[in-house]
Amino acid sequence: MIIIMEEQAESSEIKAVQDRIKSEGFPYHVIRGDEQIIISIIGDTRLIKDVPFERYESVSHVVHTQNSYKLTSRDFKADDSIVNVSGLKIGGNEPFITMAGPCSIESQEQIMECARIAKEGGAKVLRGGAFKPRTSPYAFQGLGEEGLIYIRKAADHYGLKVITEVMDEANLPLVARYTDILQIGARNMQNFKLLQAVGKTGMPVALKRGIAGTIDEWLNAAEYIVAEGNFNIIFVERGIRTYETATRNTFDLSAVPVIQKLSHFPIIVDPSHGVGEWDYVAPMALAGVASGASGMIVEIHPEPQKAWSDGQQSLNEKRYLNMMAQVDVLSDTMKTIKPIQNDI
Amino acid sequence: MIIIMEEQAESSEIKAVQDRIKSEGFPYHVIRGDEQIIISIIGDTRLIKDVPFERYESVSHVVHTQNSYKLTSRDFKADDSIVNVSGLKIGGNEPFITMAGPCSIESQEQIMECARIAKEGGAKVLRGGAFKPRTSPYAFQGLGEEGLIYIRKAADHYGLKVITEVMDEANLPLVARYTDILQIGARNMQNFKLLQAVGKTGMPVALKRGIAGTIDEWLNAAEYIVAEGNFNIIFVERGIRTYETATRNTFDLSAVPVIQKLSHFPIIVDPSHGVGEWDYVAPMALAGVASGASGMIVEIHPEPQKAWSDGQQSLNEKRYLNMMAQVDVLSDTMKTIKPIQNDI
Amino acid sequence: MIIIMEEQAESSEIKAVQDRIKSEGFPYHVIRGDEQIIISIIGDTRLIKDVPFERYESVSHVVHTQNSYKLTSRDFKADDSIVNVSGLKIGGNEPFITMAGPCSIESQEQIMECARIAKEGGAKVLRGGAFKPRTSPYAFQGLGEEGLIYIRKAADHYGLKVITEVMDEANLPLVARYTDILQIGARNMQNFKLLQAVGKTGMPVALKRGIAGTIDEWLNAAEYIVAEGNFNIIFVERGIRTYETATRNTFDLSAVPVIQKLSHFPIIVDPSHGVGEWDYVAPMALAGVASGASGMIVEIHPEPQKAWSDGQQSLNEKRYLNMMAQVDVLSDTMKTIKPIQNDI
Amino acid sequence: MIIIMEEQAESSEIKAVQDRIKSEGFPYHVIRGDEQIIISIIGDTRLIKDVPFERYESVSHVVHTQNSYKLTSRDFKADDSIVNVSGLKIGGNEPFITMAGPCSIESQEQIMECARIAKEGGAKVLRGGAFKPRTSPYAFQGLGEEGLIYIRKAADHYGLKVITEVMDEANLPLVARYTDILQIGARNMQNFKLLQAVGKTGMPVALKRGIAGTIDEWLNAAEYIVAEGNFNIIFVERGIRTYETATRNTFDLSAVPVIQKLSHFPIIVDPSHGVGEWDYVAPMALAGVASGASGMIVEIHPEPQKAWSDGQQSLNEKRYLNMMAQVDVLSDTMKTIKPIQNDI
Repeated sequence: MIIIMEEQAESSEIKAVQDRIKSEGFPYHVIRGDEQIIISIIGDTRLIKDVPFERYESVSHVVHTQNSYKLTSRDFKADDSIVNVSGLKIGGNEPFITMAGPCSIESQEQIMECARIAKEGGAKVLRGGAFKPRTSPYAFQGLGEEGLIYIRKAADHYGLKVITEVMDEANLPLVARYTDILQIGARNMQNFKLLQAVGKTGMPVALKRGIAGTIDEWLNAAEYIVAEGNFNIIFVERGIRTYETATRNTFDLSAVPVIQKLSHFPIIVDPSHGVGEWDYVAPMALAGVASGASGMIVEIHPEPQKAWSDGQQSLNEKRYLNMMAQVDVLSDTMKTIKPIQNDI
Repeated sequence: MIIIMEEQAESSEIKAVQDRIKSEGFPYHVIRGDEQIIISIIGDTRLIKDVPFERYESVSHVVHTQNSYKLTSRDFKADDSIVNVSGLKIGGNEPFITMAGPCSIESQEQIMECARIAKEGGAKVLRGGAFKPRTSPYAFQGLGEEGLIYIRKAADHYGLKVITEVMDEANLPLVARYTDILQIGARNMQNFKLLQAVGKTGMPVALKRGIAGTIDEWLNAAEYIVAEGNFNIIFVERGIRTYETATRNTFDLSAVPVIQKLSHFPIIVDPSHGVGEWDYVAPMALAGVASGASGMIVEIHPEPQKAWSDGQQSLNEKRYLNMMAQVDVLSDTMKTIKPIQNDI
Repeated sequence: MIIIMEEQAESSEIKAVQDRIKSEGFPYHVIRGDEQIIISIIGDTRLIKDVPFERYESVSHVVHTQNSYKLTSRDFKADDSIVNVSGLKIGGNEPFITMAGPCSIESQEQIMECARIAKEGGAKVLRGGAFKPRTSPYAFQGLGEEGLIYIRKAADHYGLKVITEVMDEANLPLVARYTDILQIGARNMQNFKLLQAVGKTGMPVALKRGIAGTIDEWLNAAEYIVAEGNFNIIFVERGIRTYETATRNTFDLSAVPVIQKLSHFPIIVDPSHGVGEWDYVAPMALAGVASGASGMIVEIHPEPQKAWSDGQQSLNEKRYLNMMAQVDVLSDTMKTIKPIQNDI
Repeated sequence: MIIIMEEQAESSEIKAVQDRIKSEGFPYHVIRGDEQIIISIIGDTRLIKDVPFERYESVSHVVHTQNSYKLTSRDFKADDSIVNVSGLKIGGNEPFITMAGPCSIESQEQIMECARIAKEGGAKVLRGGAFKPRTSPYAFQGLGEEGLIYIRKAADHYGLKVITEVMDEANLPLVARYTDILQIGARNMQNFKLLQAVGKTGMPVALKRGIAGTIDEWLNAAEYIVAEGNFNIIFVERGIRTYETATRNTFDLSAVPVIQKLSHFPIIVDPSHGVGEWDYVAPMALAGVASGASGMIVEIHPEPQKAWSDGQQSLNEKRYLNMMAQVDVLSDTMKTIKPIQNDI
């Protein structure tokens, strides 16, 4: 941490800052420039990030030269982490992975049909919600354990893995019994107790970016999980809240290279929530492949008009299969050009 | 709900929409204009809000004419709800209430000193966090139950009520034992399980607006609480996330008249988090009084430079007392001009 | 336009709305549902968009069923418009076009070198600013006409077209003398006088999305140009302002399919401004190709460290050439999968 | 400017940065800490703000310790600037000033009636647009010079000053002939040519904050005006664009204390555009008074339902007069509490 003080800072003011650093137990250097006095604090200054040095007299700038996350960082681990989902590998140079399924699990038949379609398109993971976070208390909240039973059965039938959301600590043991990947929803990105709890399970966790989450907060949210010893994290970009209303969210694809630069964990994209309109999903799925993402999660439904939730953004069978054919071609092409990219 | 179809909609397309409405069990009218065909659905259409009518062929617009919240709405209850905190009344024409205290409870001495200052300035409620939601897992997370014991003791000593945050369902019984008001933090505005749990306690709940929460989502979050039978809700405007970095958040004071128009529950303001810089807190506190808010919650610290968290936005004793003297004068003035305002 | 009135609206209130519609010279229908009274106004209601019907007593909703833009809309022209830049075609099924060059024209040598690099990578258009909109009045404002002379010479030498920004009406004749495409910068998206002026030239116009412009405003800005008879418009997505600071802007690639759905004019992308960091430019350029954009505009510099502006986001020769090799491969692939996409 | 390099920076990398600083003609110091190497550049580093030092190898942080604006800053002039509008003083300890009038000048009768109402409520300045920036080219664009003649006549009749918007350089001489204050609209906050042109007139300029303008950009926009020698600037906070749709904009009242801290120029507020709904205007006007603003600008109309533009946010006579009675009481109170505030 670097503290920049104004040139005209008085000795007593400089001493006040020094005393505070000392009382926190940190060594430091004071450097006098022509226009500023600079105090450089040495060591793991994450621990004194909250000290309000800005509040001391004549302090003009405080520069945090260290990230507040550690184990999540590329600095901690330079090579890509591969998340292993019961044998299915995600990240690094592994093939592009698709997770597909309905927003909500509605019945055994519906999820079985979704699994069939998902499989046919080449998806490796079946998605579907049994516990749904809904803006209104009067909206459908999910089938609960019944839904979990249905999705597990459907996935097993078609040889798929399962991803489903866990909304609270109380239901975690139940959800963990049925799923391969625990999904943390956007509204829970900073539900720190829940992050710690899924961290303790050691299971693969798909961590969605918060509705208006910064990338820095997102990396710190991952740190809550990894700090519990769980290195099986998959970031999921799902769009952020902006002023634009032409799409449900603003799909921030630049998060892909940013996360890949700052962290060793894989990132996948969710074009369905990213745009919220079925006819924009395919182009954004392709853009996701080209951005270098490790995979995607996408909403499908045998009859989107009859979906109990997210019908507007769900793809029907034909559209999903067409998109997947395109995705296959594109991800093959991406493999051939990746080496060039790495060379840059 | 009103569904507007394009003029050239075919009979089969109109029938598809009608069939869907019927299958949902709702009566409707079809009205043919010169340029549109309009289908008006009758009844409590909150229950079919998720049906993706936009997805049916030739549907051009779907208009939701009902809010998704009900008991929270002014339509449900026209007169102001007064929240009773063990005898202290908040809302309606009750006096402007101040809640003051530190961000974190740090020690018995610190919270006792904060209580003394809070009381001297005229605050009626003591704030202070024992469980702190922190972006980084390495930041101070609060003293836990120890902190709760300290704040209760300090509040009782000075005849104040207590407000403190509850972060998860597991800790709710513990927190409820010590506090008068349960605070739901910004990151938990859509932690629906927690909202239901505090709803069940029947205790006063201070519901902070989410970090990027819309007013509509906020009203729906309240609905989760009130749907459990708990009508003791206080909205807390604490600033929203925008692109502007000159302040920690953008303090949206217009939420005060908006909430007062749409809901019967009181709203108070949090200028400390609203701006995040101590020297902007007093002007925004005064603006909050003038906006017609029912009260405010503000961060103070005997020595803000030594605060374990939020030191940058905490007021010291002198500044807090000066501000409170101004707030008193202004809220007296507001009482004299309120009748004119109601006449508008 | 549809006006929805509350069920309990009184005759006099309904009459007030009707009288207003009549006085504006529009025919209408009144339709009585069980819960609402609906007034459907017939004709080109763009002309009465500003009438504050919401303000009339018992009006609950006003639905604008027509866009405020007309000639820009797909409804007006179903097939893709191809913009012809002195023989170079942009849009529709034409090949993906790259425009490359420095942020600022700095000297004859610099722009000549940029042109060489641009050409080698396969770009067809040379970019470079002679008049620069700068946040601070003390920043470099561009070489003016001198710069225009330099860029024209460099482009002609390498057989490239020129795109450069015009900042004000006064300089338009000068800029038009040297350039093939007039660029309207993000800060000028709603400089309506300038839009009308470039509209009158009939020249190709690259219309950047405003710094926080909505897609609807952008389409209306295009309408200012096309209303003057100029159908040579290219939309340029360059990122929007959000709360996220990890990138300079938030690159909204979903604008590509949205604009393609709503308008017949081509859209290209600007990954350089979209992300603002050179190492994120290539992945976003590829994502742009995959999103279906008709081209891109990208910043390059022989020595980015020495660039007078935007050095942080400019690509050097090697990185640009690598990226272009990837772009070529990807755009070839996209051609093979496009038919499938159209089938959806 | 402070450049922080990584500890492991090689000599050649440090030298590259030093060479660049030298070539720009600036002296500097190199300081070696234990974990960083710090280079402190001396002098007016505004001039090298664009040098992409971040791009040099092993540079970890670049800290700009100087603002890019100068004459606008409190550092340049510590005491409040008072803007003199033909004898009417705005800013500092001068009385709170109200500017009132319609969005658009519609006729001589309409603006005369507005002037009568404005005057009766105690406004000192008459507002009204003759040239209107409109999202759609088909919307009413203003009466032009005819409108200017009307507003001047109405203002003179009631002894009011005039404020009206100038949209482009070409019309500036015309507008300047009729108005006392030149208004720069939100869409033109970064129309730098126009800023320079109004700067050259020496006339009072009301500079609206951009639709999504940062406070830093706003201060720099003012710098364009003051750099031309014009120190008669009034900042106008009018709300910023956010994701919230309950109000037309998000009214950022914290801009008042922020601007007052950073600049010596006065700031007034525009609650009409800030919220966009007539029934929220009065509470936000009062909040504006309490925030310490030097005045406000507000939209009124004899018959808001018949307004040609902004009818939704315009106050009718009764509501305006009621609000002004409240504003008077509150601004009187503010005078009595201001000394306390200054003491803080």
